[in-house]
Amino acid sequence: MKYIFVSHGDLAKSMLGSAQMIVGEQDEAKAFGLYPTDDIGGLKDQVQQAIEEFGGGEDIICFTDLFSGSPFNAVVGLMGDYPIRHITGMNLPMVLEAFMSRMNEELTTEDISAKLLSQAPETFIDVNNYLQVNMEE
Amino acid sequence: MKYIFVSHGDLAKSMLGSAQMIVGEQDEAKAFGLYPTDDIGGLKDQVQQAIEEFGGGEDIICFTDLFSGSPFNAVVGLMGDYPIRHITGMNLPMVLEAFMSRMNEELTTEDISAKLLSQAPETFIDVNNYLQVNMEE
Repeated sequence: MKYIFVSHGDLAKSMLGSAQMIVGEQDEAKAFGLYPTDDIGGLKDQVQQAIEEFGGGEDIICFTDLFSGSPFNAVVGLMGDYPIRHITGMNLPMVLEAFMSRMNEELTTEDISAKLLSQAPETFIDVNNYLQVNMEE
Repeated sequence: MKYIFVSHGDLAKSMLGSAQMIVGEQDEAKAFGLYPTDDIGGLKDQVQQAIEEFGGGEDIICFTDLFSGSPFNAVVGLMGDYPIRHITGMNLPMVLEAFMSRMNEELTTEDISAKLLSQAPETFIDVNNYLQVNMEE
């Protein structure tokens, strides 16, 4: 299972870097960013090269920062040519769970995507509500 | 409405930086990271200083990277002393929505938190399902 992170600016690289602070160094994970001076074609080429290096296959999940936008579109533009999975809206809990999940080698990208998507809404927490701190009532 | 982003490593700074690539430069927004050589007390002090600079009040939302962990705990440790709001699990769509929402000056931190939390689950999208690309069936 191989992961590619794609975002505006440094977000994807920092997401991978911060995840590695918690779960340790990760092989078969790459991150790419789109910068103000870049063109989207260059980013798409970088992601395509990473997909090729990873074997171009059914064991690749691309994570993007948000629905629509150039990084998202770069990955969508590659989905017709490669059997990759693509999840958007990544946050750190999701990325950590992705790294934990791939330790089970029996899971497919479809299994992992389904798992991440089902757990994702619970990773957003209103901490004041949760802890009952600083509430109006 | 003032925002403080706190994370492991560079994630918070990149989240703010990447958001600004999309919605433009933002005032009254700061980001802090915990690095392997740091102690959590130093991070808490930095966040506390930012809260003080922002007036220490009811118009501050802190966004952290994930539930539990040192950045989260640093902010939780300040919730008893300041009437701040705290949301964890931040992703880019949530941060963008936060910046858009604060343009409406009538909204309280509680209003914005409720809005962000209600919209957040929809920001995670399985793009293969959405576009019906690379599906098994």
